[in-house]
Amino acid sequence: MYDVMKIREDFPILSRQVNGRPLVYLDNGASAQKPKVVIDAVTRAYSEEYSNVHRGLHYLSNLATDKYESVRGTVARFLGARDEEEVVFTTGSTMGINLVAYGWAMPRLQAGDEIVLSVMEHHANIVPWHFLRERLGVVLKWVDVDAVGALDPQKVIDAITPRTKLVAITHLSNVLGTVVDVKTISAAARAQGVPVLVDGSQGAVHMPVNVEDLGCDFYAVTGHKLYGPSGSGAIWIRRARMDEMIPFMGGGDMIREVHKDQITYADPPMKFEAGTPGIVSQIGLGVALDYLMDLGMENVAAHEAKIAAYARDRLDGLNWLNVQGKAPGKAAIFSFTLDGAAHAHDISTILDKKGVAVRAGHHCAGPLMDHLGLTATCRASFGLYNTEAEVDALVEALDLAHELFG
Amino acid sequence: MYDVMKIREDFPILSRQVNGRPLVYLDNGASAQKPKVVIDAVTRAYSEEYSNVHRGLHYLSNLATDKYESVRGTVARFLGARDEEEVVFTTGSTMGINLVAYGWAMPRLQAGDEIVLSVMEHHANIVPWHFLRERLGVVLKWVDVDAVGALDPQKVIDAITPRTKLVAITHLSNVLGTVVDVKTISAAARAQGVPVLVDGSQGAVHMPVNVEDLGCDFYAVTGHKLYGPSGSGAIWIRRARMDEMIPFMGGGDMIREVHKDQITYADPPMKFEAGTPGIVSQIGLGVALDYLMDLGMENVAAHEAKIAAYARDRLDGLNWLNVQGKAPGKAAIFSFTLDGAAHAHDISTILDKKGVAVRAGHHCAGPLMDHLGLTATCRASFGLYNTEAEVDALVEALDLAHELFG
Repeated sequence: MYDVMKIREDFPILSRQVNGRPLVYLDNGASAQKPKVVIDAVTRAYSEEYSNVHRGLHYLSNLATDKYESVRGTVARFLGARDEEEVVFTTGSTMGINLVAYGWAMPRLQAGDEIVLSVMEHHANIVPWHFLRERLGVVLKWVDVDAVGALDPQKVIDAITPRTKLVAITHLSNVLGTVVDVKTISAAARAQGVPVLVDGSQGAVHMPVNVEDLGCDFYAVTGHKLYGPSGSGAIWIRRARMDEMIPFMGGGDMIREVHKDQITYADPPMKFEAGTPGIVSQIGLGVALDYLMDLGMENVAAHEAKIAAYARDRLDGLNWLNVQGKAPGKAAIFSFTLDGAAHAHDISTILDKKGVAVRAGHHCAGPLMDHLGLTATCRASFGLYNTEAEVDALVEALDLAHELFG
Repeated sequence: MYDVMKIREDFPILSRQVNGRPLVYLDNGASAQKPKVVIDAVTRAYSEEYSNVHRGLHYLSNLATDKYESVRGTVARFLGARDEEEVVFTTGSTMGINLVAYGWAMPRLQAGDEIVLSVMEHHANIVPWHFLRERLGVVLKWVDVDAVGALDPQKVIDAITPRTKLVAITHLSNVLGTVVDVKTISAAARAQGVPVLVDGSQGAVHMPVNVEDLGCDFYAVTGHKLYGPSGSGAIWIRRARMDEMIPFMGGGDMIREVHKDQITYADPPMKFEAGTPGIVSQIGLGVALDYLMDLGMENVAAHEAKIAAYARDRLDGLNWLNVQGKAPGKAAIFSFTLDGAAHAHDISTILDKKGVAVRAGHHCAGPLMDHLGLTATCRASFGLYNTEAEVDALVEALDLAHELFG
């Protein structure tokens, strides 16, 4: 039984007020709030159990190493990976995708080679590929979404040619809420020998994920969106792809031996983890993922589907509001504009006066904004602790904004 | 008045026991413990004030952004930088040096170009340059230390040739404690148009730093060694060098506009900061640096010099102990081996039984270990909260180890 009111009590910040109103936090797409178990784990790690990891042999170092390294298995379980050695720790999806761009793609792709992307990618899954376009002459092939913001997997598959070296695609759009059929795309791409990178920044937050079932090659997640600490994250990389990769960042921990004129590297995943990692952040991420698995991602998804349906109905009732993205099965992410001249930034400022936190801007999705013919939207993005009453609060605040700007 | 006993009360972990003994934490070279103000700032940020930064317009996002961005000025003050826009946030020195390797050096250096390094560099300031050797044919030129572990700045200057494109050097050796005369080296290098990168991972922890006075071009620091959180850090980059750099990691925040076939980048420092940063970690770093500046780095250095002198005298009294590095003015970092067959790992295990935490291994300094003819040492590295009584505890534990293995 998913008791959202009880779950809300796990998140200290949700009981605070903003501008004299109870906080209605609908900016989960940007970053999620943290349950007390995560905050307490971070506090305890710094107050009682802190040390650097790996290279120490004293009690605190061994303790921190055990706690830190155990998170690799937690991430593997969370993502349905077969082997925790396929998990590389990162500071988030951005670093994970850059790791693939620098470590796998750059030494491999040549001028004229193609990367297939959807038009609704986040900049984290665009800019690293623009680097390859600028530096190597790689061609970016964009697949459009349809009128409701759905992505036909066959259109992605059709975009694959003999020159395609990678499909880089989101699991769930951070603007439209569209869920992508990664499994169908991956099956077709792999049949043609084309690896598939999935930006799971949003997908892993809202749905159960099983990378083996999806059949992709890379799956990047961001800890702070998964109710974990700042600067935590991971990327799952299929072992065969790991073996093809050169190191990305150089430093401690990722080497076997370093001499003046010779160097050898550690085996994966350590090969891709340089320097002292975000020890306490990753320990906190492990606690966050355990929290999510205890709730059950199926249950989180079911709760959010209910919220999404309720929000859709209520927002549909506002005939001066234009919601972007109405794909079937979309997640509880609603980007919208208002009829008239009101700018998204002004609307979000009005909502904020009512304690309703939404984000306004391009949401790091430039090509999608071009596609929609917009420069900015407001975005209300829901999480596992949001309620129907918060949807009502959003609608009430929107009514006020419409009244003021209408 | 520097009251070390009062300062120790600021660090919760220092009152704990390890193996039934009071913790004697002498692994500061690997990572430092955190004062309560830092831990509390992290807890508060997550419990009451958390949001993603920059792209929000709601109350919590503005609050988090203000706190986060204010740290740039704190870092600038701490490092004596003229302009906070010369500060790039990183996850630590490793990322900072990789940023310079990928963003400045890789597009610029060619086969046969030379990088001058000292033999006592940490892997963080070696491996990125090995990448350039492996990938571009760049030549690494190593400058040795003398018999006591001192580095003659003239030897570094003499190693500069018309093919030299960079001097990459530590400010303070993490193994020997040797302080490098970066100012003299920088003046000579810059006179020949050669930029100087300083690995300040240890230097900034133990001495007041003023990058303008040093005259270098890059100065990288690591937050977790500076009594700040996991995954925090920064690199100071002289503006003229920033203007020569291409972006390193691609993603949100570092762009101006992203379209399907065109991209423009933000101005520095944002150009070099991709994706959601380690918001709370950086906020904690700001608190840590304020804590250090409140103590006064001159006072920290004076306290540690006293500890270093006391430790040197006590360790000199152990005629079966071999301390590596006796350079004049060295910091309170003592790497040592014992006469006989006792391995560094075994010694550190014995010390740990007495509550004394030291590190054993190669300390991420392969070329230095080759130079010393060793594979591993134990290292006792002191910080601002260590005491002469802790030196005594170290010596007592070493006596026991000597008795057991001697």
